[in-house]
Amino acid sequence: MARQARAVATRQQIITGAARMFEQSGFEGASLGDIVDGSGTTKGALYFHFRSKDELARVVIEEQHRTSIESVRSVAESGASALRQLVMVCHEMARQILDDPVVRAGMRLTLEFSGSSEPAQPYVEWIATAQAIVEHGIEQGEIADTVDPATLARFVIGSFTGVQLVSQVLTLRADIEQRIDDMWEYLLPAIATTDDAAELAAIRAARWKAPVDATGAADDTSTGDA
Amino acid sequence: MARQARAVATRQQIITGAARMFEQSGFEGASLGDIVDGSGTTKGALYFHFRSKDELARVVIEEQHRTSIESVRSVAESGASALRQLVMVCHEMARQILDDPVVRAGMRLTLEFSGSSEPAQPYVEWIATAQAIVEHGIEQGEIADTVDPATLARFVIGSFTGVQLVSQVLTLRADIEQRIDDMWEYLLPAIATTDDAAELAAIRAARWKAPVDATGAADDTSTGDA
Repeated sequence: MARQARAVATRQQIITGAARMFEQSGFEGASLGDIVDGSGTTKGALYFHFRSKDELARVVIEEQHRTSIESVRSVAESGASALRQLVMVCHEMARQILDDPVVRAGMRLTLEFSGSSEPAQPYVEWIATAQAIVEHGIEQGEIADTVDPATLARFVIGSFTGVQLVSQVLTLRADIEQRIDDMWEYLLPAIATTDDAAELAAIRAARWKAPVDATGAADDTSTGDA
Repeated sequence: MARQARAVATRQQIITGAARMFEQSGFEGASLGDIVDGSGTTKGALYFHFRSKDELARVVIEEQHRTSIESVRSVAESGASALRQLVMVCHEMARQILDDPVVRAGMRLTLEFSGSSEPAQPYVEWIATAQAIVEHGIEQGEIADTVDPATLARFVIGSFTGVQLVSQVLTLRADIEQRIDDMWEYLLPAIATTDDAAELAAIRAARWKAPVDATGAADDTSTGDA
């Protein structure tokens, strides 16, 4: 059992090391040698767990995607209104980007691999999830029934993607939370049925908090490094 | 003179070839050997014009940036209203992304180089240009005076960046024009002083057309390959 636990820890160490190299240099720029050095492991250990750089990249994207989808599911279970959920999802994804090198690497790799004719699955699923929230919001009367759910979902994910990238370009993401708040300030008037300023401010202020378990530690499976 | 014209043509051929490699493989993934092969030139010719891959990348970014800034200037000189100018700039930048491999490569390289602490100059200038248009729109009473010009400019550039990237990821940019139209549909209600549906539709429909010169050729210096 101790040996198995060590193997799991080594595998995770390699994934995190690979993520840091992919984040910094992209898929083409990161060599397996760099990944071995950066993760403090050996070439033998790397090849015990992964067949190739391609497989490592695929695992990084899958892990990032799993992290994102778990948080979206948690937000959906929070019982918050649809618009609050959309705001929460954006801020929660931004928190993961700030905290987790695997998430940052996954985002970069997904965009780098997008030149192929296959649409990138993470984006397809993010948009589908956002679309379900929008449909719920229209049913509940919180989002205008003139809104097309697929179009709005696509715009929210597209806009979020660019807002966080430009925040990285200009401030290394120091202003990301403020920029997401701006995004909702400009977007809500077109989609919310209310025009009450206090309610719109409350929607923009919505944040998801990870439930705290009995030990006092946050119930959060992300591999934060903040 | 013929020799000089040939040198200029070769230099441009190398820039276009390098752009295709940078677009496809990123900075780290594109080798000078690939660039030589892809541009149908020789290593000698490449080193006659450029010292290094770094210099080639810098020239690609500069050329892309020059193309963008020229089109923004042309839009500003069109005499269109501020909101129409913002819509025109987005659609014109999308057209350049579709038509010009140097523009696509420049966008990719600018995002790849953004890990450094230096903010990327093209983004700084795009935002400054958009901000000047927003300020003009507020003065003219077309944009609400509650709008903060710097914040709106940053959101428009961020949102456009993400909308075109997600259009690339999902449809290889086949739907980019429709997605930019969606963006303005969701953004205009928060910023336009008018709520007249026909006027809002007219703003969204605004497109910049390159003036046609006496020979009948479009007065357009971009190196289109469509």
